[in-house]
Amino acid sequence: MAKLYFYYASMNAGKSTALLQADFNYRERGMTTMLFTAAIDDRGGEGMITSRIGLAREAAMFDAGTDLFAAVAAAPPPACVLVDEAQFLLHAQVLQLARIADEQRIPVLAYGLRTDFQGVPFEGSLWLLALADVLTEMKAVCGCGAKATMNLRVDAGGAPVTAGQQTEIGGNDRYVAMCRRHFMAAMA
Amino acid sequence: MAKLYFYYASMNAGKSTALLQADFNYRERGMTTMLFTAAIDDRGGEGMITSRIGLAREAAMFDAGTDLFAAVAAAPPPACVLVDEAQFLLHAQVLQLARIADEQRIPVLAYGLRTDFQGVPFEGSLWLLALADVLTEMKAVCGCGAKATMNLRVDAGGAPVTAGQQTEIGGNDRYVAMCRRHFMAAMA
Amino acid sequence: MAKLYFYYASMNAGKSTALLQADFNYRERGMTTMLFTAAIDDRGGEGMITSRIGLAREAAMFDAGTDLFAAVAAAPPPACVLVDEAQFLLHAQVLQLARIADEQRIPVLAYGLRTDFQGVPFEGSLWLLALADVLTEMKAVCGCGAKATMNLRVDAGGAPVTAGQQTEIGGNDRYVAMCRRHFMAAMA
Amino acid sequence: MAKLYFYYASMNAGKSTALLQADFNYRERGMTTMLFTAAIDDRGGEGMITSRIGLAREAAMFDAGTDLFAAVAAAPPPACVLVDEAQFLLHAQVLQLARIADEQRIPVLAYGLRTDFQGVPFEGSLWLLALADVLTEMKAVCGCGAKATMNLRVDAGGAPVTAGQQTEIGGNDRYVAMCRRHFMAAMA
Repeated sequence: MAKLYFYYASMNAGKSTALLQADFNYRERGMTTMLFTAAIDDRGGEGMITSRIGLAREAAMFDAGTDLFAAVAAAPPPACVLVDEAQFLLHAQVLQLARIADEQRIPVLAYGLRTDFQGVPFEGSLWLLALADVLTEMKAVCGCGAKATMNLRVDAGGAPVTAGQQTEIGGNDRYVAMCRRHFMAAMA
Repeated sequence: MAKLYFYYASMNAGKSTALLQADFNYRERGMTTMLFTAAIDDRGGEGMITSRIGLAREAAMFDAGTDLFAAVAAAPPPACVLVDEAQFLLHAQVLQLARIADEQRIPVLAYGLRTDFQGVPFEGSLWLLALADVLTEMKAVCGCGAKATMNLRVDAGGAPVTAGQQTEIGGNDRYVAMCRRHFMAAMA
Repeated sequence: MAKLYFYYASMNAGKSTALLQADFNYRERGMTTMLFTAAIDDRGGEGMITSRIGLAREAAMFDAGTDLFAAVAAAPPPACVLVDEAQFLLHAQVLQLARIADEQRIPVLAYGLRTDFQGVPFEGSLWLLALADVLTEMKAVCGCGAKATMNLRVDAGGAPVTAGQQTEIGGNDRYVAMCRRHFMAAMA
Repeated sequence: MAKLYFYYASMNAGKSTALLQADFNYRERGMTTMLFTAAIDDRGGEGMITSRIGLAREAAMFDAGTDLFAAVAAAPPPACVLVDEAQFLLHAQVLQLARIADEQRIPVLAYGLRTDFQGVPFEGSLWLLALADVLTEMKAVCGCGAKATMNLRVDAGGAPVTAGQQTEIGGNDRYVAMCRRHFMAAMA
């Protein structure tokens, strides 16, 4: 049976690197893959998965209108489907990924953030946490040395931001991965 | 650092047995524990954690009004806090468990269902999946031999129930743990 | 594909309880199982798997002459094979378990100690750590509250025993599960 | 408590990439790291950790004479110690890594092969499997699509090699990661 995997982490754990390495492993064996990333995320250019460490590869983009089950069914069957920025999936799209595993019998590896800057799961994350066959944490490090599991949003001056949209577009805010204890203290 | 653990599973994986074994391990070493279970669940009598395999032990009960952080802080510090039926926790109570781990430095082991009979996470499960330090799956088995991750509600005649309250009180329905493929087929 | 699972732990983690719960889960679904335990371990009587928490069930015994692949192949195919005291398996018997999973397509769940009182893996443990499809740790607790991963042998007076046979028969020694730090200190 | 982690895999799972990403994560936070790799492995030049996907970074080399505990103790305390090609560690060196975690309180991340071309654990792997606090598998893929856990050695013509030295120096053989079922069939 093919499985739906959710690799979850805070910011800067190396999710895209792990995705690109898994993709590399399949292609190195002569197997084909299909890569998706969120249209909302244009850090690496349109339709690119990029990692801070310097890796990059083209990917199809998904947005709210994408039917991932249909997209995969319409292609020559890949050996693996890989989805970056999976926190931005809708509920229906997570169900599509489950059906790719269950009905098309193709393993699906989804990588994404667990929670937003307020400690609330993203829609895609919530349903992957609920429905994936395998949940695997990727580890980032807090400034204190502990495992970072939360994402603090800070403004241009470095001060914590406690309210606002889940996904900030075009602002000056940035994120700092933190352990829960330091995150809760910063948010208090 | 003490951690908040979430042991999640479908029905009939052995969650209560695992909780009672962990409790036994601590007490065997001369350490004290605190046990909680949901007031909503009176299968084993008021304030009992019971397992199908035949184990049982008294536990404090939590309902929507319980402050778990305060309850633990008011007691002589236990070596471990164990929570059964953790799917019934409220968001605020999961945050209390996180603070028991982070501020009182006491490990918390929470055991609960991942999703309800419609494949939707319970409130307690959702926040534990979002915020726990360690997510560990306990395995149940589907009739097909695959891992069961979903819970089908069936009526007295064995037919799938697809709509209704998340928690059914006093009815004749029961639950069957299933793999996602068979669950989805039964719900379709 | 069926898998070979190795659930490893120190003493007193609850291995036999977990095995008996897994067995219960299968049988509750109307599926048959085959249970094995080591002939060397007669704590629970001949051919019984018993847990400190009070559970027990009959099991076939294996010793150095047992061909586990043949024993399972000769029976009506069970849905699952469960092996307690798996540290006492020989190399050839671990290979037999792998073949039960790979060729007979039956999942095998083996439970055992990781290392002996000197921190050396048992023969069965070594080969299961090397060859099992899934390695899962079961947690015991050290007196300091940390995870216990090692097994200290102590004499009747409670003093650490640092030399002797890997398996002590008929003596007065006993074992204390400890974290590695406290184990190393006690052995120094 | 700092922990000793063993990330084990077959060939070509992406071990070095994962190590370099973990190193990157620490340094990005302004923390220092110490990297070690085996002197036996000069694929990337003397004292380099390189990954097939294109990443590289300098590392100190260890050989049979290296005291890793002393080497780390002599340096300004790093936030993390990372060891590649950990299968080549000696028993004494794995104990040194455990002491770095337990006594110097520095987390140690060791990456290595689980077994050799005959399905036998390497010395470093055996002791890491026996003594590490956390065992985490990294996944490679077999040509059949299943998880590859074994390493088949093949000669220049692609034929399986079933006998020889554990580590082949300067020959023309190479390795193919395989699932256990296909590995056993090839070795038979």
